Amino acid sequence: MSVTISDVEKDFLDYVKKMEAYNEALALIFWDLRTGAPKKGIEQRSEVIGMLSSDVFQMSTSEEMAQYIEKLSKDHAELSEVTRKTLHECKKGYDRNKKIPAEEYKEYVILQSKSESVWEEAKEAADFEMFRPYLEKLVEKTKQFIQYWGYEGNKYNTLLDMYEPGVTVEVLDQVFGDLREKIVPLVQSISKSEYKPETNFLFTHFSKEKQREFSLEILKQMGYDFNAGRLDETVHPFATGLNPGDVRVTTKYDETDFRTAVFGTIHEGGHALYEQNIALELVGTPLCDGTSMGIHESQSLFYENFVGRHPSFWKKNYDLLKEYASGQFNDVSLEDFYRAINESKPSLIRIEADELTYPLHIMIRYEIEKGLFNDEIKVSDLPIIWNEMYEQYLGVKPENDAQGVLQDVHWSGGSFGYFPSYALGYMYAAQLKNSLIKDVPNYDQLLEEGNLIPIKEWFTENIHQYGKMKQPLEILKDVTGEGLNANYLIDYLYDKYSKVYQLK
Amino acid sequence: MSVTISDVEKDFLDYVKKMEAYNEALALIFWDLRTGAPKKGIEQRSEVIGMLSSDVFQMSTSEEMAQYIEKLSKDHAELSEVTRKTLHECKKGYDRNKKIPAEEYKEYVILQSKSESVWEEAKEAADFEMFRPYLEKLVEKTKQFIQYWGYEGNKYNTLLDMYEPGVTVEVLDQVFGDLREKIVPLVQSISKSEYKPETNFLFTHFSKEKQREFSLEILKQMGYDFNAGRLDETVHPFATGLNPGDVRVTTKYDETDFRTAVFGTIHEGGHALYEQNIALELVGTPLCDGTSMGIHESQSLFYENFVGRHPSFWKKNYDLLKEYASGQFNDVSLEDFYRAINESKPSLIRIEADELTYPLHIMIRYEIEKGLFNDEIKVSDLPIIWNEMYEQYLGVKPENDAQGVLQDVHWSGGSFGYFPSYALGYMYAAQLKNSLIKDVPNYDQLLEEGNLIPIKEWFTENIHQYGKMKQPLEILKDVTGEGLNANYLIDYLYDKYSKVYQLK
Repeated sequence: MSVTISDVEKDFLDYVKKMEAYNEALALIFWDLRTGAPKKGIEQRSEVIGMLSSDVFQMSTSEEMAQYIEKLSKDHAELSEVTRKTLHECKKGYDRNKKIPAEEYKEYVILQSKSESVWEEAKEAADFEMFRPYLEKLVEKTKQFIQYWGYEGNKYNTLLDMYEPGVTVEVLDQVFGDLREKIVPLVQSISKSEYKPETNFLFTHFSKEKQREFSLEILKQMGYDFNAGRLDETVHPFATGLNPGDVRVTTKYDETDFRTAVFGTIHEGGHALYEQNIALELVGTPLCDGTSMGIHESQSLFYENFVGRHPSFWKKNYDLLKEYASGQFNDVSLEDFYRAINESKPSLIRIEADELTYPLHIMIRYEIEKGLFNDEIKVSDLPIIWNEMYEQYLGVKPENDAQGVLQDVHWSGGSFGYFPSYALGYMYAAQLKNSLIKDVPNYDQLLEEGNLIPIKEWFTENIHQYGKMKQPLEILKDVTGEGLNANYLIDYLYDKYSKVYQLK
Repeated sequence: MSVTISDVEKDFLDYVKKMEAYNEALALIFWDLRTGAPKKGIEQRSEVIGMLSSDVFQMSTSEEMAQYIEKLSKDHAELSEVTRKTLHECKKGYDRNKKIPAEEYKEYVILQSKSESVWEEAKEAADFEMFRPYLEKLVEKTKQFIQYWGYEGNKYNTLLDMYEPGVTVEVLDQVFGDLREKIVPLVQSISKSEYKPETNFLFTHFSKEKQREFSLEILKQMGYDFNAGRLDETVHPFATGLNPGDVRVTTKYDETDFRTAVFGTIHEGGHALYEQNIALELVGTPLCDGTSMGIHESQSLFYENFVGRHPSFWKKNYDLLKEYASGQFNDVSLEDFYRAINESKPSLIRIEADELTYPLHIMIRYEIEKGLFNDEIKVSDLPIIWNEMYEQYLGVKPENDAQGVLQDVHWSGGSFGYFPSYALGYMYAAQLKNSLIKDVPNYDQLLEEGNLIPIKEWFTENIHQYGKMKQPLEILKDVTGEGLNANYLIDYLYDKYSKVYQLK
């Protein structure tokens, strides 16, 4: 009996399913570690993580995987679409991992883990020099890997491709250029405006339990399915999709700033809606995931900013918020509340930035990374360059490296090419919204009614269901009819902030 | 270079460590499923469970395992004690699994899973006839397995050995005989006593949150380490040791009967103390677990009854309980409270039974199981036999099969030989206490002071630390200097209940 292509296809899908089962177990372990796993069990849990991760890694680079890739690549036309795309993902991972000599990869993993702890200490001490030699090695190693992997056009493209397939330096230079040109003057006009929002009332005591209850109400309104998820507390909030039937949201409570939990939950809820609504036929394959960091972030930022910071959303929900709060908003008009939660001012720390200035933080990191991997910037010059750029883009200057170049964890883990996704997500969101309101013209009214379901359904129809079946720019093209265009975000920001700050 | 025995030993321990890593991941998945995993994710989670379980099963019965057993069994003297005992456990599992033809085992697993759902329906309908054909098949299959596995003396011994190695029908007939002879008349005297406790005040509203806070206080008093554990809510309470640094307790809250949560937490806390205090050198081996069901239950029952239902414990904690309760005990003396929580009366349902009548429920199941596997009882006669025995042992008669022979889940999963562990645990606990008070003569005083640490330390020293390094009867012998002896439990029960019911 000869082995047919469909036998191989079936075996391949079983093989992949097993890898995904390990990944699901790992995802649960990570969720648990970040939501209350007892401290003393962590060391042994790390052994379990090591074991399961190495199972997945071995399976992804095994001789068996090589055989599947070889055999199935020959008969591409006979395969189902799901198999073809799964094969594509597996091949991508196989190539990436196999092209680096095993010994070098091992050294790199050790370097990564050391660098993360050194970075923590360096940040604590606000001393870039402590971290510099590690960052230099990480950049050198990554350059070496780019040589192994190969590149097209710009060397940095290879790194971008890991997080946002299809988005290149050429694309980013264009959109970030457009964005910068328009946002910097807007930020300057705002800082000159005398019509500044009052914000003191935001920082009054709001009990954790009540914040949680309000957050649950909002998740419900968004169409988050509690039979396929739950809300837990954590230190660094995240959402995690174990499978589409189990997508968990976590949040953090600050009893003197309810915005942390409320906007954080809406943001993570946006991520969660994506993963809850991936087509079930993709379960057990690597396609059962968001297609890219940027598209994922488009969902979270859409809900956080285009829903959660929209005046109509608060027309519906401000009274509800007042019910859960203990009096802090009693003398505050809806208008004043709305302006307060949309305050914008230049700041030093990315994760505390408002929606207007946030993209500028990202652009600084983008320019630096691009410079590093094209040998135009040296690691040793980073603190100076960083501080100069903050002055130039945002008009603020860090007092030390902890507030500056050391603020983010990403580089210490070797995650270069990741930052642009955050700003991409934001541009995608604005561009997608422009298409959404063509299909759902009563958008503002729906928010006012608290009926967010048609919005979720539109995203499911156009994005969620596909998982990784479509590439990010493919989705954008199919939905909006064009490539990435920064103007939608620019228009949105001008329109909104001109009103909030009454600019002429 | 020749392979030395220590190379093989090291490889074997690595192999075993990997199996334990899968088991730890599985334990976390089960904990999660029972403490709030979203419903819609369960189907896919079952796939993950299936995959990981089959990894463990395959590793435990692989050719590689066979080789380890063969090679290492030859050089027994050169191995460390931990390796020798680990090998013993692995060989036991290997033999058990390999002796059953794969096809038959597969049929059995399907039968098990069908039987459990049929049992649920049958219990719902209170109709034994629905369940009978499945139970008959389960018994038949198990008899067949006993043939494969072999037996010494009584066929039922092979089943007992799975849960309580070394405890045989001969031992159980002796101790259960002693117990029954003394308990039945004691139960009868109590039922004739006119000095019955008042219990109404137990059933007043007691908020869940406050019950939780009180339960946490008690766990702390017991010496439960919250850096190595946590308390969660569930439907069927359990404790689970993922590793000694992560041993989780779960409980259930009944707002009109605080005893469910409080005694339940103390019970599961006793299990948890065992697993938190196993020697760390056993981590990563199958020895890092309680040595048997019975010894495990001795720890939970010790804390539940010999601590939690002891008058000195409540001298310390009654005022604390009153602080958390909302007035229900204000007019109740400590003496009346103590008598209420030690009320004893014959009942139909095992899991609701008090400590005096509980062993009688177990003995009935023991006699039935022994009869089934020695062809002295037919499955079809079970309802009649069950009801007759309940009248004979406890003086009560079920009105239907749901209250009778269908009440427990165990048989539907093929767990025959399990029940005796519950009563064994109780006898062990009484016998161990007799030794404990020789070393810790101020036992009552410690309870009164809320200083339970010396008690935990005594158990760690004598039991916990060993994990599976010692067999149950070996522990009993080392600690108490004798074999299993029912008299300690009998004396305790007579002494206690004569006082509670003022018997002459």
